[in-house]
Amino acid sequence: MSLKNVSLNDILDAKKRLGNDIIKTPVITNDYINKLTGKNLFFKCENFQATGSFKARGALNAVRKAIENQYIPGFLTHSSGNHGTALAWAAYKENKPCIVVVPQNTPKFKKKRIEMFDASLVFADNTIKGREECCEETQKATGYFIVQPFNAFEVMAGQGTLAIEIDNDVPNCEAVLVAVGGGGLVSGISTYFKEKESVTAKERLWKNDGESLNTIADGIRVKVVGDKCFKQVVKYCEPNVLTVNDEEIKNAMKIIYEELKIVVEPTGGVTFAGLLKYKDTILKDIKNITLVVCGGNISSNDISKLFST
Amino acid sequence: MSLKNVSLNDILDAKKRLGNDIIKTPVITNDYINKLTGKNLFFKCENFQATGSFKARGALNAVRKAIENQYIPGFLTHSSGNHGTALAWAAYKENKPCIVVVPQNTPKFKKKRIEMFDASLVFADNTIKGREECCEETQKATGYFIVQPFNAFEVMAGQGTLAIEIDNDVPNCEAVLVAVGGGGLVSGISTYFKEKESVTAKERLWKNDGESLNTIADGIRVKVVGDKCFKQVVKYCEPNVLTVNDEEIKNAMKIIYEELKIVVEPTGGVTFAGLLKYKDTILKDIKNITLVVCGGNISSNDISKLFST
Repeated sequence: MSLKNVSLNDILDAKKRLGNDIIKTPVITNDYINKLTGKNLFFKCENFQATGSFKARGALNAVRKAIENQYIPGFLTHSSGNHGTALAWAAYKENKPCIVVVPQNTPKFKKKRIEMFDASLVFADNTIKGREECCEETQKATGYFIVQPFNAFEVMAGQGTLAIEIDNDVPNCEAVLVAVGGGGLVSGISTYFKEKESVTAKERLWKNDGESLNTIADGIRVKVVGDKCFKQVVKYCEPNVLTVNDEEIKNAMKIIYEELKIVVEPTGGVTFAGLLKYKDTILKDIKNITLVVCGGNISSNDISKLFST
Repeated sequence: MSLKNVSLNDILDAKKRLGNDIIKTPVITNDYINKLTGKNLFFKCENFQATGSFKARGALNAVRKAIENQYIPGFLTHSSGNHGTALAWAAYKENKPCIVVVPQNTPKFKKKRIEMFDASLVFADNTIKGREECCEETQKATGYFIVQPFNAFEVMAGQGTLAIEIDNDVPNCEAVLVAVGGGGLVSGISTYFKEKESVTAKERLWKNDGESLNTIADGIRVKVVGDKCFKQVVKYCEPNVLTVNDEEIKNAMKIIYEELKIVVEPTGGVTFAGLLKYKDTILKDIKNITLVVCGGNISSNDISKLFST
């Protein structure tokens, strides 16, 4: 049976369902960065997660939950990014075929990551509408099960397992910063913490007023928080929204590369960019802060371009 | 009393002396890279070491050993790179002043890292001879204790503590690949393993025939293995020498950044470059291999330049 909303119990169930197939990613601290910011920062490194982003959590939970409920011939989604790779990986784990609908202009680096797990690519028009239509047609033709990138309770519950690890590994955590695109990750994390009432979560939300953002942070180009996610967000998230621009993201990424020595994609630098910008205002009275580093999938060519200016 | 050579016991002593001030760095494995190479590879990540390279081990051991033996007014070395930063950090830990002699053309990124630990910079001519003379003069003027970058037994013993961690954390290790510049690291590692007779160490050595190499791997531009190191190398290292060129290092770094999601400096990519080049020849019959990732100190600007071609 599909979930009708997402609760603490669903997240704890997801944790059991994922077992040891999800990496318990490290939490990194850095004396220099703490000195620079005057905070105790804890970087939760989902760039080291299977498939290079937190998306593996939600995808694997959705795949396994679907298989528990019914016979599934295969899995299907539309995403050229981290969710597409994560679903391909999750289906591969369960020996199910997987089709990922991607735009025709998807870069080689992203295609390679999806095909690494034997998924088939179907190419659609370079618009969101074109992709969705192509996905529906493919679903009709194959009977495959669609796993949405964020607007699905099983996906949110899977992403929420990240919060369990933060809760266990970060001492006296007062706030968690999360980058928001479609809102799947922030829904899972805020549900966990608020239903446990253990920390105050602060997050960054995009306004719900458009289709797609022009930003280097391709993981959060989605401008519309999913309707299912939005319910959780309204219920559980702090009202403060921290926003950052591309220059601020780049600057944060430079410090992360040079001092933490980890590779993050632009979306993975968003939370630290927010911290740097708001540390003396909105975040002034908060000392112990977890920053979710959501992913590390970026080509060496794109790294070069980012840091060339 | 100064050491007259370096033995397993000196390395075990160094381990005690360093205590918890040295980070027990992670060993990373990666399914994709293992599939690509047909090996079980273990990346020992000294880019996550204090000061961003393994040099912290040798510097702190030398500093503490010196303080045990005699009154030391301060510490001194000539190195614009990782040893300079490591000595500055080690002296700072012991509340001793530190002077680092660097060439006038030292990049800002490197100067910043040394000054981060309150060391003073003294600028010398841009030649090795100029730096050494300046270091001697500074020593006469201050009475500070010189810690050589590699050609000192206390330094080698400190670097050798890395081998203890490999021995504990890598199951069934058959070979260790180490990048060699002056030879301090390889001396320490080979001494540990050969005196324990637990694995066969294979290393890459520069020929002993010149002053300085033109390579992107600035950590191994030294072409002359130190005489004290050379004794250990001749006694303990395998005769095979693996050599790589700059293009091979860049290619290895791309895979490390894109798949392992860690930031390494060029010298940190040398062992994987050697593995990729010799996996089906010299390393054909060896399955479980540790690759020492020696450091991660590189500016975002230099990363950009490296990956732009």
